[in-house]
Amino acid sequence: MERFELHILGCGSALPTTRHFPASQVLNVRDKLFMIDCGEGAQIQLRRSRLKFSRLNHIFISHLHGDHCFGLLGLVSTFGLLGRTADLHIHAPAGIGELFAPMLNFFCNHLPYKVFFREFEADEPEVIYTDRSLTVTTIPLKHRLPCCGFLFSEKQRPNHIIREMTDFYRVPAYELNRIKNGADYMTPEGEVIPNARLTRRADPTRRYAYCSDTIYLEGVTDQIKGVDLLFHEATFSQEDSSRAKETFHSTAEQAAKIAQAAGVKKLMIGHFSARYEDEAVLLNEASAVFPHTILAKETLCVQV
Amino acid sequence: MERFELHILGCGSALPTTRHFPASQVLNVRDKLFMIDCGEGAQIQLRRSRLKFSRLNHIFISHLHGDHCFGLLGLVSTFGLLGRTADLHIHAPAGIGELFAPMLNFFCNHLPYKVFFREFEADEPEVIYTDRSLTVTTIPLKHRLPCCGFLFSEKQRPNHIIREMTDFYRVPAYELNRIKNGADYMTPEGEVIPNARLTRRADPTRRYAYCSDTIYLEGVTDQIKGVDLLFHEATFSQEDSSRAKETFHSTAEQAAKIAQAAGVKKLMIGHFSARYEDEAVLLNEASAVFPHTILAKETLCVQV
Repeated sequence: MERFELHILGCGSALPTTRHFPASQVLNVRDKLFMIDCGEGAQIQLRRSRLKFSRLNHIFISHLHGDHCFGLLGLVSTFGLLGRTADLHIHAPAGIGELFAPMLNFFCNHLPYKVFFREFEADEPEVIYTDRSLTVTTIPLKHRLPCCGFLFSEKQRPNHIIREMTDFYRVPAYELNRIKNGADYMTPEGEVIPNARLTRRADPTRRYAYCSDTIYLEGVTDQIKGVDLLFHEATFSQEDSSRAKETFHSTAEQAAKIAQAAGVKKLMIGHFSARYEDEAVLLNEASAVFPHTILAKETLCVQV
Repeated sequence: MERFELHILGCGSALPTTRHFPASQVLNVRDKLFMIDCGEGAQIQLRRSRLKFSRLNHIFISHLHGDHCFGLLGLVSTFGLLGRTADLHIHAPAGIGELFAPMLNFFCNHLPYKVFFREFEADEPEVIYTDRSLTVTTIPLKHRLPCCGFLFSEKQRPNHIIREMTDFYRVPAYELNRIKNGADYMTPEGEVIPNARLTRRADPTRRYAYCSDTIYLEGVTDQIKGVDLLFHEATFSQEDSSRAKETFHSTAEQAAKIAQAAGVKKLMIGHFSARYEDEAVLLNEASAVFPHTILAKETLCVQV
């Protein structure tokens, strides 16, 4: 299986603590790095996680609260000092360019590379990135200002050719692409060799969904049905559910209900409020509803 | 002696490493905290140093490079979340208000306290802060853009009254202030009691000078003569002195020469380039010229 793994750089919320950095993650898909949110200190945590800066070309910002984007200035600046030349794309809700451009122009002038702000509207799901192996779709959430999660979906890969079999049947090279994509092969003598004898099925595709920050929102389950890993914010415990509602955040129990309703394979909770000295209370609450739950933690790396 | 101590929050330079945060320090003078520079992560380090956020009302920014001020947004935002109501004053070279105000207005709206940008010109020494016990004066430096260090000088306190002696001579209460300030006392009988019999001298005043970032600049020695502690940047080693000159930074040897010429009591070097895995090379270089040299280090606390 090719690499598809999630690194947690920070899983605290607005108020950083000695235990948690603000929100930031990196998804490594076949050695391309995708950053999700970029709270203060993200570049420091990126370095601690020993991830290669040069493999990061796309950053996805869920919403314009400081704990999700204050790390951008330092990151962009550091990339410049490291002599980066490749374009950097920052995908974010509309408005980010106007806010950050004056600061970047002043503090990061003469960058040896270009920064592009790719703004999206947060009201409808939208494919905002695609490459040979991956698409990224926004997941509209409900927070105090426009906010989207992100769904990272691996594309179905063609089947693998079984070289011994195609050699045996003397399959000409120009037929290989059709066979990879599922076609049977007919020999010059008119014998049909079924595709299943010539190929091994490609690995199943994997999906990762990031949902933060949001009030409890049942509507998201449609879009994230059966994903391999769901990160859902769990800022509060059920005891503080009125506070969660007030601030448009979720409780650990609510995160677990979403995971259950969507039938995901695994749930990771994070974006912890500073008030919980020990997040075991959040883990227990979520696990009671959805057993396959884990706690996010700085420098944790999980296979999706 | 009342408290006068320096906490190092970060002593790296533009490129953060896993060992060093960018520039930030806190000077604690009689339990009032003064922050000097505010690189990314300063609020996290402030918390790690267990310093009380509420005692910090003044921040001094040496110059408008990101590694000296990118931590401001997160710090201001966190102070708001903590319910701060006291004014916060940010002293910095001209231009900071125009740059940061739009970001603060967007990300930190509805703050329960006020932020004031107190801009100074960086070409002449200027007293930019004064209270009952302290003055802060800018130290013009020479960097790639306007930049000042800061001289923190304790004010001379009045002498201490020796209560047993003033009682013995039946000194009336209204005379005490004059005596504290050095006057002798004349009894009703005309006997002159010299001040030295009535008072103990106040503790000697202490001074801390912060010089970062700057090219080697002999001119600063006049202003920092004999200070108790000098922090001087030592971004490079002498081997990289041409790089130091090019980028308007100092070498460790140059920092030590300044300390020697100014006859300071102790030198601390910092603002280390990321290229030095082990700063012992910088310490050795400086100590050869000025033996009372120490290396800055995150969460280090020294008495001035």
